[in-house]
Amino acid sequence: MDEFDWIQTYLAPLAGPEGLKLLDDAALYTPSDGQDLILTQDSLIEGIHFLQGEYGAGTASRLMAVNLSDLAAKGARPVGYLLSVAWPKHLSSSDLKRWMHAFSKGLKTEQDRFGFSLFGGDTVKTEGPMSISATFIGVVPRGKAVLRSGAQLGDDIWVTGTIGDAYLGLQLAQKTPETLKHGPSREDLWVWEEAFRHPTPRLLFRKTLRRYATACADISDGLLSEAGHIAKASQKSLSVKLADIPLSNASLKWCTAKAEEARRVELATNGDDYELLFTARPEDAGHILTGADKINLAVTRVGKVTEGESVHCQGLKGQQLPLQKLGYSHN
Amino acid sequence: MDEFDWIQTYLAPLAGPEGLKLLDDAALYTPSDGQDLILTQDSLIEGIHFLQGEYGAGTASRLMAVNLSDLAAKGARPVGYLLSVAWPKHLSSSDLKRWMHAFSKGLKTEQDRFGFSLFGGDTVKTEGPMSISATFIGVVPRGKAVLRSGAQLGDDIWVTGTIGDAYLGLQLAQKTPETLKHGPSREDLWVWEEAFRHPTPRLLFRKTLRRYATACADISDGLLSEAGHIAKASQKSLSVKLADIPLSNASLKWCTAKAEEARRVELATNGDDYELLFTARPEDAGHILTGADKINLAVTRVGKVTEGESVHCQGLKGQQLPLQKLGYSHN
Repeated sequence: MDEFDWIQTYLAPLAGPEGLKLLDDAALYTPSDGQDLILTQDSLIEGIHFLQGEYGAGTASRLMAVNLSDLAAKGARPVGYLLSVAWPKHLSSSDLKRWMHAFSKGLKTEQDRFGFSLFGGDTVKTEGPMSISATFIGVVPRGKAVLRSGAQLGDDIWVTGTIGDAYLGLQLAQKTPETLKHGPSREDLWVWEEAFRHPTPRLLFRKTLRRYATACADISDGLLSEAGHIAKASQKSLSVKLADIPLSNASLKWCTAKAEEARRVELATNGDDYELLFTARPEDAGHILTGADKINLAVTRVGKVTEGESVHCQGLKGQQLPLQKLGYSHN
Repeated sequence: MDEFDWIQTYLAPLAGPEGLKLLDDAALYTPSDGQDLILTQDSLIEGIHFLQGEYGAGTASRLMAVNLSDLAAKGARPVGYLLSVAWPKHLSSSDLKRWMHAFSKGLKTEQDRFGFSLFGGDTVKTEGPMSISATFIGVVPRGKAVLRSGAQLGDDIWVTGTIGDAYLGLQLAQKTPETLKHGPSREDLWVWEEAFRHPTPRLLFRKTLRRYATACADISDGLLSEAGHIAKASQKSLSVKLADIPLSNASLKWCTAKAEEARRVELATNGDDYELLFTARPEDAGHILTGADKINLAVTRVGKVTEGESVHCQGLKGQQLPLQKLGYSHN
């Protein structure tokens, strides 16, 4: 591979002034006074976190989304990122060029969408699957970051958007299972595929979150699992009502067609939603609804913060579902 | 692999307050007023950047060293890092535990040595070779970072330490070549192995660099290649005298034993030195020598900054060596 070509042709146009024209092997960033920085790093491995052989724009935006979603959960605004790419050696020179073009286009789309730039990074070759990693830098006004540790007794639990669509989209992308073969309309399939392929990190919700959320986590590994992370960091319990977890019409039809409770649990315990789960004082509910409405975002109350340090999920008949069934563990 | 165990048992003790106990998937860093941040990211792939099957302390410190050396070149002090590790799936549970222990011990050694802490990161599994990546955050007083772009006509070119020992150390670690089979004493071999296995990022030299260096790069890919990076970023030529490049006694003996010029070129064009190459005004030579002496660091003048945008190397008989021979290209 021509690393020089990759850097100068495809990456240099994406770099901000902090990237020093990518000539310095390091970025120089001057923080504004009165701001805190949020730093987050997430990696994707071919065949595990994205589909084998998909080295293009979709994978680039997935890498952006998983990291941006972490920033969104903190109430941060992204300013830049460092990108590390290990390109597979087996790619022919012409294929590599084509993928580099597509991948960098995906990066640019997300940069333009949310207004941040490339700071730097590094590039290597690997005998193994493609592996990509990004470190994102975000900013929040000093002391205003939303952590996982702030949930208070009696807080409402909220979730943005709908849950489980991306999980069904992944099923479709891999190998359509029996349960998706009959019934769903073309439109339903489209909803799921879009949710999986183009997750929207909820960055625009940051002002409301910073003001009213007591704790927040992004939903990358399933709603109930993330509830567990807030529970652990806040040393509280999160009690969620399965029936209140917001579903798209497509997913709702899928759930009610058969084995409704099991299917709802399936959607609440699988990943890739990139929605936000947050807690807030009940008296702030109106502000939260107004803030969400301003950016056309649906938000739904799904439970309450209670005593303990665990996750409880109330089934469709009001019964407590056993934790193992929720795929939830403290790990 | 038990990711929870890796994070809680081995990584959490390495985290600073910025790491939020590694419970938040992101770090919160409050920059001091009046400081600039330097951000750098470097990755290592098993079998390419470190020896196959070496998942322990040595590999951890190599990852630290390559990143810290980038900070050193900017005159920065390290404050923290995010670590991304892809552990190979083929490792048995007990082997994995053993390697995790050794790897985290290597991280701790470097943290204690230079005074910085773990901010966060992520962990995945891979079917391929181990791949590890770190993003380092360093600080410099505002406006005091040393870039590659500041070399001025007439500046001296300096280098820290000795060049080429790590390259010979790598040769020994891989498969001892003919040229290293006869002649070198046990002590010579030790010098080379140490240079390869325990490179010392020149972080302690930062005050002198910030004050007197006009440009600086760390030597990861060979002295003449790094000279090319400064030449390109500064739009000047760097004219280096082969005879003046500092060598250890061990390497000097190796060079003078046979084909001296070719061997000196070999040492100046291969990597892993992690010394610094920098430029400075001739009138500051005294200050530079004093600053280096205070931290017991050898510094040597190896050439001059001249007109052009290239690298020139003067051979042992005063002749210009052709660039191809130097393994140097603008890429």
